[in-house]
Amino acid sequence: MQNKLKIINDPVHGFIKIPHEILFDVIEHPYFQRLRRISQTGLLNLIFPGATHTRFHHALGAMHLMFTALETLKQKGVKISEEEEKGAMLAILMHDIGHGPFSHALESMLMDDWHHENLSLLLMNELNEVFGGQLSLAIEMFQGKYHRKFFNQLISSQLDVDRLDYLKRDSFFTGVSEGNINTQRIISMMNVCKEGELVIDAKGIYSIENFLTARMFMYWQVYYHKTSALAEFLLVKILERAKYLVSQGADLPATENLKYFLNREKSAATDEDIKRFTQLDDNDVIQAMKSWQNSDDFILSYWCTCVVKRDLPKTIISSHPFEPKFIEEKIKNTNEFFGINNGEELVHEIKRKLLPYDAKKQPIYLLQKNGEKIRLDESEDQLLSGLIVNKTTIYILTFPRNFTKIIS
Amino acid sequence: MQNKLKIINDPVHGFIKIPHEILFDVIEHPYFQRLRRISQTGLLNLIFPGATHTRFHHALGAMHLMFTALETLKQKGVKISEEEEKGAMLAILMHDIGHGPFSHALESMLMDDWHHENLSLLLMNELNEVFGGQLSLAIEMFQGKYHRKFFNQLISSQLDVDRLDYLKRDSFFTGVSEGNINTQRIISMMNVCKEGELVIDAKGIYSIENFLTARMFMYWQVYYHKTSALAEFLLVKILERAKYLVSQGADLPATENLKYFLNREKSAATDEDIKRFTQLDDNDVIQAMKSWQNSDDFILSYWCTCVVKRDLPKTIISSHPFEPKFIEEKIKNTNEFFGINNGEELVHEIKRKLLPYDAKKQPIYLLQKNGEKIRLDESEDQLLSGLIVNKTTIYILTFPRNFTKIIS
Amino acid sequence: MQNKLKIINDPVHGFIKIPHEILFDVIEHPYFQRLRRISQTGLLNLIFPGATHTRFHHALGAMHLMFTALETLKQKGVKISEEEEKGAMLAILMHDIGHGPFSHALESMLMDDWHHENLSLLLMNELNEVFGGQLSLAIEMFQGKYHRKFFNQLISSQLDVDRLDYLKRDSFFTGVSEGNINTQRIISMMNVCKEGELVIDAKGIYSIENFLTARMFMYWQVYYHKTSALAEFLLVKILERAKYLVSQGADLPATENLKYFLNREKSAATDEDIKRFTQLDDNDVIQAMKSWQNSDDFILSYWCTCVVKRDLPKTIISSHPFEPKFIEEKIKNTNEFFGINNGEELVHEIKRKLLPYDAKKQPIYLLQKNGEKIRLDESEDQLLSGLIVNKTTIYILTFPRNFTKIIS
Amino acid sequence: MQNKLKIINDPVHGFIKIPHEILFDVIEHPYFQRLRRISQTGLLNLIFPGATHTRFHHALGAMHLMFTALETLKQKGVKISEEEEKGAMLAILMHDIGHGPFSHALESMLMDDWHHENLSLLLMNELNEVFGGQLSLAIEMFQGKYHRKFFNQLISSQLDVDRLDYLKRDSFFTGVSEGNINTQRIISMMNVCKEGELVIDAKGIYSIENFLTARMFMYWQVYYHKTSALAEFLLVKILERAKYLVSQGADLPATENLKYFLNREKSAATDEDIKRFTQLDDNDVIQAMKSWQNSDDFILSYWCTCVVKRDLPKTIISSHPFEPKFIEEKIKNTNEFFGINNGEELVHEIKRKLLPYDAKKQPIYLLQKNGEKIRLDESEDQLLSGLIVNKTTIYILTFPRNFTKIIS
Repeated sequence: MQNKLKIINDPVHGFIKIPHEILFDVIEHPYFQRLRRISQTGLLNLIFPGATHTRFHHALGAMHLMFTALETLKQKGVKISEEEEKGAMLAILMHDIGHGPFSHALESMLMDDWHHENLSLLLMNELNEVFGGQLSLAIEMFQGKYHRKFFNQLISSQLDVDRLDYLKRDSFFTGVSEGNINTQRIISMMNVCKEGELVIDAKGIYSIENFLTARMFMYWQVYYHKTSALAEFLLVKILERAKYLVSQGADLPATENLKYFLNREKSAATDEDIKRFTQLDDNDVIQAMKSWQNSDDFILSYWCTCVVKRDLPKTIISSHPFEPKFIEEKIKNTNEFFGINNGEELVHEIKRKLLPYDAKKQPIYLLQKNGEKIRLDESEDQLLSGLIVNKTTIYILTFPRNFTKIIS
Repeated sequence: MQNKLKIINDPVHGFIKIPHEILFDVIEHPYFQRLRRISQTGLLNLIFPGATHTRFHHALGAMHLMFTALETLKQKGVKISEEEEKGAMLAILMHDIGHGPFSHALESMLMDDWHHENLSLLLMNELNEVFGGQLSLAIEMFQGKYHRKFFNQLISSQLDVDRLDYLKRDSFFTGVSEGNINTQRIISMMNVCKEGELVIDAKGIYSIENFLTARMFMYWQVYYHKTSALAEFLLVKILERAKYLVSQGADLPATENLKYFLNREKSAATDEDIKRFTQLDDNDVIQAMKSWQNSDDFILSYWCTCVVKRDLPKTIISSHPFEPKFIEEKIKNTNEFFGINNGEELVHEIKRKLLPYDAKKQPIYLLQKNGEKIRLDESEDQLLSGLIVNKTTIYILTFPRNFTKIIS
Repeated sequence: MQNKLKIINDPVHGFIKIPHEILFDVIEHPYFQRLRRISQTGLLNLIFPGATHTRFHHALGAMHLMFTALETLKQKGVKISEEEEKGAMLAILMHDIGHGPFSHALESMLMDDWHHENLSLLLMNELNEVFGGQLSLAIEMFQGKYHRKFFNQLISSQLDVDRLDYLKRDSFFTGVSEGNINTQRIISMMNVCKEGELVIDAKGIYSIENFLTARMFMYWQVYYHKTSALAEFLLVKILERAKYLVSQGADLPATENLKYFLNREKSAATDEDIKRFTQLDDNDVIQAMKSWQNSDDFILSYWCTCVVKRDLPKTIISSHPFEPKFIEEKIKNTNEFFGINNGEELVHEIKRKLLPYDAKKQPIYLLQKNGEKIRLDESEDQLLSGLIVNKTTIYILTFPRNFTKIIS
Repeated sequence: MQNKLKIINDPVHGFIKIPHEILFDVIEHPYFQRLRRISQTGLLNLIFPGATHTRFHHALGAMHLMFTALETLKQKGVKISEEEEKGAMLAILMHDIGHGPFSHALESMLMDDWHHENLSLLLMNELNEVFGGQLSLAIEMFQGKYHRKFFNQLISSQLDVDRLDYLKRDSFFTGVSEGNINTQRIISMMNVCKEGELVIDAKGIYSIENFLTARMFMYWQVYYHKTSALAEFLLVKILERAKYLVSQGADLPATENLKYFLNREKSAATDEDIKRFTQLDDNDVIQAMKSWQNSDDFILSYWCTCVVKRDLPKTIISSHPFEPKFIEEKIKNTNEFFGINNGEELVHEIKRKLLPYDAKKQPIYLLQKNGEKIRLDESEDQLLSGLIVNKTTIYILTFPRNFTKIIS
């Protein structure tokens, strides 16, 4: 039989090779194929039109970086068996499999008692049965139960291949070049210290600092861009409003699966929940928003129109909470302008926090020439990491745009 | 008042500037915003996961290239007024505004008597009323009625900014680097000859030939990739089947607007048609396919499942039509395998033709040092253009995959 | 007559257009052509093999960015006459014309009483005579005497097009991606405030902060890389030693022009000095080092061999000055190892200082929405600029490599 | 001992790893370091200012691609031992070690009876002695004597890593994007057929055709650009003239080593020849041209001035030989203009031939799904390779520029 290497074109990393059959089988499974219809960055494409990439694509990219990272470690003398390689690649491939429509934005809405990582684990276990236990090691690594710590650190830490892929990918598709990290450089500096943990060769320090500042820039310019934050916020409010209206007896047009979740009450995940959930994707929500533009409920109709026609409410950004008096005034204006009395539904303060580098929990370690590891921010050569260890919070006030044209 | 220049991040061209207010107004119009939900390359993302970019993005990119092209021509001494600049930019911005769901694939299905360019024109005229006649010159240029020919040639010819953008953009998002043309180089070689037509400075000949071969490679590797051709074909067959079933009295779940078109009969476009059409996008069709997986009709259900789960039928490619006997056998196998008697519905020959460079209709001209123009393929320096002037046809046979595993 | 636009292929910026004839004339002058033989980054190519780019190329690139910057400002409503455009482009084109062999490294050696900017000015004045006064405005701008301040700020400030080009170009050719700034983004954010000074639109803040940190990374990773610092240091020591030996009567092989400068004594620049100087370039020095490998003087021979064979002395880096005792020991070892008694010639402490962002002298200003300017580091949105306003110093100790293999 | 992986920054391929100690040792040898002072593309930087890259850099890049190619083959199941890997990497690393100043241009001048590949082999054998026979397998592969053919095909064939690197590198540094091949794609399509030969997986056909046309474009736009051809031609004529003058007793200033070769007569390579040759590089020739500008011989002085000041003679290009009468006239004009009687020295017809794809000698093979190989140009899917199998010749006439301004 001829030796074939499946490859996928990826504009970000070049070619993605799929070196093991089980990886390909998981990719072909409908659970994974569903990720094609879940955008990686929610409604960010309203601000950055190129950001239409999907979680499917990200998962493949992260798998590719895992492969590259393991190759590098092997070349540095770290022993990694084929089973371990498969396990680590499967784990990262499936790490986001539990994401629902619009990824993070809605995970608290539809299955409000379930975090996407729990769902990922639940779906992984289901797939493990389908594939006769071939995913067991992957699940162990994903949960951090495998004895060689660096595998889990590659899957989930401040310097995991998940972050490496999504930062580079999001920078690529948004066109925000400040976030364009060089994943190849960073990975080539990875190593495993004698304690079995993931570390960075000391000479890679600036690549890591550059990665941390690039990430910080991406947060402020992209993920926490005031319009991005607003769009994500609106998605949540729309679903919240819809659930509320449904609970009040309204009959909102929606696909059957979405209707199911609008009606669902908090409980342990049932088989029905899972079956329905794995058939939901961005399209259910977009289609609902399109039709809810015509809802009798003014609030729901207003928000859906804002999103679908991209005629978004006004936002102001500040490094401090807004004065209650100022907010009150906006509500009053809203009521007057629209002739409504629940203007507070349309005026909100959105909060976003960022800790660029967490020096305490799971810090990044450098591997020094003497074989000892040292915390990045405690290295003599560090330039920035010690300076970005504090949390910053921003406040975004949103309120209807139209009347601002009149009153201000 | 502060002088503001709206800019949009574009990973392909860097930054897109919107230098005139009317451009911004058109972009903000719901007709144009709808293009955010229409993919540029249909279901190509099933093969190239990065190809999730939209017609909205392409239109902005083409507008940007138009701006760049006009700047270059001005620097070479071609007089272009601000009105003409606005007109040309508006025309290219709106050139695809009449596209329906999945762009080309379905244009013959929903409004089967209307080509997307007619619809574009119709919508442009509507917008022209909204904007008080500001689009008149743009429409004139779009229709090729403006007396300075090169404007229309920049909008629609073998070397227009439409092609320049979509080739570069599709290459960028698919990751197929063979199609990566250098738009900046090509545009910098544009000129206008004494007859007022678009020409290329003679020394740009290889950039143009490279563009023509890049385009050819994109067709064979991407647009006419056998799985791409199949996916596009399935989309058409699905809608065709749905229309047929509806005409037979079936009640297929779909959004109201999509239902409208499944029931619509050929006729002149009515206001109702237009209103409905401008509310349709990819989501209506995807959502329909998701639910039609459960249709009672085996054919419809089979195809929709193929697409949604990406478990596609088998394809074979050939440079010659397939033998009728061979096709018959596939139909027979299909009938046996599924226990049906209309297997011919699932076995099809798809045909794709390409003429890499049309030397007869609207040939590309080079501007020689002596000021005279010469046809690209007749230039003494041409290396390839004279060799790629013939039409090639490929034939793709598709039939259900499953039984092939058994019989071949 | 046909309208021609001269263009030059530049891998960094794409195409460089030369829009005015006088620019082309200056480029063709032998003074400017000489820059083809002067490397932009001295001996950095010993560490980064791609860094073979020249000052000729950098000057063209900076001219291109000036053009782009002026175009952007014009689009924002800043009036700029054609004469001013020519002046600014000429000024930046010629800003480095006074550089001698290996640029910065040797400027203090050959004409030790002349700074390269004085020499640039002197040569500009000569060229101004050649071109009948066409360079007068350029010279005025270069000297900061022109009344519109932003022109000089584009030529020489913390955010001038000189820095923009050399950072991007050096990052490109070294392959150190941490320094890869997006010049297009930064330039598109430039503006002129009501005081007539160069400012940055407030929303461009992160592009600027990214530029400042990229610059910082380039210094520590590239320009102040310990081997880079060493190579530059050796160049200076070699020329110093050669001058010393010549002053002691030695006859060192060298080109006539280099010999002239080895013999020259401090004085006002004579016509002969200038004539000789404009015929010197990197080749004179490289050729000299190649032949001085065979010098009778051990020190000169040792250093030249180190550089030519790239068998460089050892370096240790520290954030503190080295202990005198430690240095003494290295000198002692050197004397013993080589059987010499002037080992102190081969053991040196090299010092490098960096101030990433100078908040006091010529700070960078942001243009706020209200039309007022604010200092970058005092903006509420700044993330890093306020943190990198202090000077850092590093210390590099160099000593012969060979005996370290034995003793340590 | 810590496991270290030497890495070099390469702007073209990212990072170049040096996985074996012997590779590093060869790189550190002065014979190899000399390549730092030999430009990859001769005087091409007179036309493309970025093209200052060196043969040193190219050799490292080719070594990197060899490593990548072998990794790919291993992943496809081809067994390759560590010794074979080292051998192949060493062979490609040293393949150009015999190049003299300005690479190809002058190889026929200095050692006119020795081709650079002979010299490479001679120097490899010398190095093999230095390194105790560690290079024997590499030399065997280089000569095509090793029994597994694909190793030699990776070193030297129509699709070897030498071509892959230099095309990509030259495209990168010149900025001529038409030559920008995707080496990663091409290598990922490499395979070894059952006969042990290098083949390309059938689906890679368009990447290969794109490579062939990219190469063709590079030849016509870059390597055979009329000014490139002229510059290379002048180099040869200058050295020829210098040798002639020396043979007539002239005393031309030059470095000792260059003088040696100006005086050398054809003979078997002596030890002295080799010793001298390995000390020569571009600088010897540039320095000579700089001083020969002042030669008493008008021809030599004229040419050297042309090159050093980049004030090049006129060129006309044609696809046919020039008429003798036309050439005669140019000679006559030259004589009159300069008042000389050997004008024929300054008027020359330069000829360049290109065969884009040689279908007969060492054709490229595709590996079909059935395991059989087929010639690229005979494949049913080929689009271009069958069309570019003929040799093309161009003719460039050069003559002094100045008088053309007067007479034409």
